[in-house]
Amino acid sequence: MRLSSFFLPTLKETPTEAQIVSHRLMLRAGMIRQTSAGIYAWLPLGHRVLKKIEQIVREEQNAAGAQELLMPTIQSADLWRESGRYDDYGKEMLRITDRHEREMLFGPTNEEMITDIFRSFVKSYRQLPLNLYHIQWKFRDEIRPRFGVMRGREFLMKDAYSFDIDADSARRSYQKMFLAYLRTYARLGLKAIPMRADTGPIGGDLSHEFIILAETGESGVFCHKDWMELDVLKDAPNVEDDLQPFFDQVTAIYAATDEKHDAATCPVAESDLVSARGIEVGHIFNFGTKYSKPMNAVVAGPNGESIPVEMGSYGIGVSRLMGAIIEASHDDNGIIWPDSVAPFNVGLINLKVGDAETDRVCLDLYGKLQAAGLDVAYDDRDERPGAKFADMDLIGLPWQLVVGPRGLKSGVVELKRRATGEKEELSVEAALAKLTA
Amino acid sequence: MRLSSFFLPTLKETPTEAQIVSHRLMLRAGMIRQTSAGIYAWLPLGHRVLKKIEQIVREEQNAAGAQELLMPTIQSADLWRESGRYDDYGKEMLRITDRHEREMLFGPTNEEMITDIFRSFVKSYRQLPLNLYHIQWKFRDEIRPRFGVMRGREFLMKDAYSFDIDADSARRSYQKMFLAYLRTYARLGLKAIPMRADTGPIGGDLSHEFIILAETGESGVFCHKDWMELDVLKDAPNVEDDLQPFFDQVTAIYAATDEKHDAATCPVAESDLVSARGIEVGHIFNFGTKYSKPMNAVVAGPNGESIPVEMGSYGIGVSRLMGAIIEASHDDNGIIWPDSVAPFNVGLINLKVGDAETDRVCLDLYGKLQAAGLDVAYDDRDERPGAKFADMDLIGLPWQLVVGPRGLKSGVVELKRRATGEKEELSVEAALAKLTA
Repeated sequence: MRLSSFFLPTLKETPTEAQIVSHRLMLRAGMIRQTSAGIYAWLPLGHRVLKKIEQIVREEQNAAGAQELLMPTIQSADLWRESGRYDDYGKEMLRITDRHEREMLFGPTNEEMITDIFRSFVKSYRQLPLNLYHIQWKFRDEIRPRFGVMRGREFLMKDAYSFDIDADSARRSYQKMFLAYLRTYARLGLKAIPMRADTGPIGGDLSHEFIILAETGESGVFCHKDWMELDVLKDAPNVEDDLQPFFDQVTAIYAATDEKHDAATCPVAESDLVSARGIEVGHIFNFGTKYSKPMNAVVAGPNGESIPVEMGSYGIGVSRLMGAIIEASHDDNGIIWPDSVAPFNVGLINLKVGDAETDRVCLDLYGKLQAAGLDVAYDDRDERPGAKFADMDLIGLPWQLVVGPRGLKSGVVELKRRATGEKEELSVEAALAKLTA
Repeated sequence: MRLSSFFLPTLKETPTEAQIVSHRLMLRAGMIRQTSAGIYAWLPLGHRVLKKIEQIVREEQNAAGAQELLMPTIQSADLWRESGRYDDYGKEMLRITDRHEREMLFGPTNEEMITDIFRSFVKSYRQLPLNLYHIQWKFRDEIRPRFGVMRGREFLMKDAYSFDIDADSARRSYQKMFLAYLRTYARLGLKAIPMRADTGPIGGDLSHEFIILAETGESGVFCHKDWMELDVLKDAPNVEDDLQPFFDQVTAIYAATDEKHDAATCPVAESDLVSARGIEVGHIFNFGTKYSKPMNAVVAGPNGESIPVEMGSYGIGVSRLMGAIIEASHDDNGIIWPDSVAPFNVGLINLKVGDAETDRVCLDLYGKLQAAGLDVAYDDRDERPGAKFADMDLIGLPWQLVVGPRGLKSGVVELKRRATGEKEELSVEAALAKLTA
C-alpha cells in the first residue's frame, strides 16, 4: 500500500478526550473515529488489525473443534422471555420496536438464540458434543462508555456455546476452550492470566476471566507472583488429550478477581501475592442447564430418556483486544505491534521522493517484498523525513526500512526494528534477505 | 470436515413456507435458519459460502483501488437530519432510542456517515480521488420480508463511496466500479446485465442496476437479445486504462429496468427485444454533490478555493447474492455451486463405514486432498448410501468422490461432477491426481 493514496489520517496533537494510552494512540494513528458515544468506525489501518485479531481467534476456535456460524444482530424479545432474562438485563440492553410493533433487541450475547437453534435441530445424544461459535457485533448500552474501544457500546465479540450430554463431558468442553483461549492470547503477544470469577448475569457455577495486567485496567486482581514468569503453554497437551491435569496445574496457581478474592481465606502468603489492575479480555462459563431447562433444549439419551443438555459459553472481545494489545505494547513514540497482528509487516520509507535512484530502489524493494508475501506500507508521500519517521513509529509496524540518496551512495539502506529501536545499515540485498527469511 | 460431527441439519421435507427455489434449497441444505421474520442465522454450511462470496467481492474492490474500512451498524439520527433523509426514509428505517433518549437508527446505508468521516479528515484536492468501502450488516424494515435471504430485513451489503474533485474524475471512479462489478459477478459464476436505472432515495442522475435474469426475479426488465450470448469482459481493459470506450461499448447494448423502459422510445426492434424477470444484485450511483453540499464536505482546490466533492456510491448485496447464485444454478436434486464459492471443493463419500479397507482408503484420500489445499467434506456418517448421495447432491459440492468395498476390490473409486452428473471410475491415484491437478 502506498501511503500517498492510503486513507491514514494521523493526528499530530494528542486528543484531549482520550483518558488512556490505547485510546489516544488509536486516534492519533488514524485507526478509529468515534461516530456516536461509544460507537466507532474502524478506519483502514484499524480495520486491518481487527481482521488479523479476528482471524487468530477463529483459527484457535477451529483448532479446538468449534464450528463457525453467524447469528444476526437483531433478536426477538420473546426468546429472552423464555429464559427469563428479558427483564433482568436492564438498561444495558438496546430495546427496539419494529414497524409491526414487535419487540426486538440488539443482541448483547446469544445464549437464548443458540439454544433455540440447537433445540430445533439436535435430537439425539449421538450428535453431541457440539460447540458452535460466531464472531458478530454486539451492543451493550453502557451508561458511560469510555476508554475508546475498550468499553464501547457496539463491539465485536467471538462467542462460543458448547452442548454436552453430561457434566463430565461439559467439563471437558470447558477445558478445551480454556486451553484454546490461552493459545489465542499467546499468539496475540499477550500474557493473559485465567482467574476464578463471578458468573454474573450469565449464570452457572464455574467461570474464569482471562486478565491482562495493566495499570489502566478497570478491575482489581490478585495473583501469586509465580504468574509473572510463568509460561503455562510450555507443557500444554494436545487439545485431544486429557486436559484435566493441565487445567488443575494451571488453576492451582492462585489468581482471582477482587469479587472472588478474600484476604482472610487467600492461600497465598502476603509476600508472594501480587495486587494489580487488570483488563478482562475473555470470560468463559459452564452453566449447566440454566438455559436448556427453561427453553426445553433436550436430547434423547442412550435409553431414549429425555435429557436437558449441559451448556457453556465462551466470550472473547475481539475489538477490545486491540486496545488491550496497545496498552501492553507501546512506548512514548507510539504503538509497537506484535508481528502476528501488525497491519503491515514492513514500513518502507523513501527519504527523498523524486530522487531517481531512491525512487527506483524503493519501487524495486516494494515489489520484491510484496512478491515474498509481505504486507508493505510504502511511504512515498512528499513529506519531510522527520514526519515520516514520526508517523512510522506511531503506527508501530514491526520493521522500518529506510532508503535515502546518501545511504545509497555508500550502497546501504537502514533497517530498524520498532520494538527494540535497533538499527542496522546493510546492503539492499541483505535487507531483502533478512526481511524475507 | 467430517460430516459425522459437522453441524449440517439437512431436511428431507420441502419447507412449505418457502416460495422460491433458493429459499427452499437453503433451508433443506441446512444453510440458514430464520430467527425472526426476514432475519436469518447462517448455519456453518451457509456461513462458509457467505465468507467466500464476501472475499471475492473484497478482492475485486481492492483490485479497483477501493480501501476497506468498517462503519458501525448503529448511527445517530442527527447525521441523517443533516442530509434531510431522516424523515424521507419512512418506516423502512429501524429507529431506535437509547438509554439517554438519543435518537439512533440501524443503518440501511452509509452515505451520511462516510461523508462525515470524509469531511473530518480530508481537506485538500491532493488527497483525491478516494474510494472507501465496507462490508457490514444493514437493516431495512421491509413490510413483507420474503424469498429468504433475497429480501430479508437484516442483510450483508458491500457499499463503496467515491470522492472526486470534479465530474470528469467522478465519472472515471464510476466506471472503475462498473468494471469491478462485472468482474465480481463473473467470478461468482453469474451473468449480470448492467441496466440504466432510477436513482430512488439515493439520488443523482447516473445509475446502473446489475441484474441476473431469473423467472423468480422481482422486477421486469428489457434487453437486447445480444446480451444472451455476450461476454463483455472478453475485451475489458485494465482498470488503470481509459475505461470510457469500454463503458460506452457495454452500455450501448440496450438494457433497462421497467421503470426506465418505454416501449414508445425503445431503440430496439421488437423482434430483438427480450422481456424477462430479473434479480437485482448490485446498484451503483453517481450523485454529484447531493450529500457533500448539505453536509459541507468540501476540499481546498488548486487555488485554495472551497469545492464540494463529487460523490458516488456502489452497493452489492452479499447475502442476497447467495440466493441469486442458487436461483441461477440448481437442478431437481439440489444446489450446484460454482467452484469459486462452493462451501467445500470435494465431497468424499464412504459407502461402508466400518469396513476396514474402505475406511483406510477414505482416510488416506481425506488427508491427501486436504494436504493439497482442498476443502473436503468427508461423509463418514453411519447412513445408507442413498441418503448420502441425496445429501451430497443437495448441498451441491462441485465434485463427489465415492469410495466403497465393491469398487475397491476392482481397484477403483467413482468421481462425479455435480454440474453435469458425469461419472467416471478410476484408480485412487488417478482420482487424486485429477482433483489436485
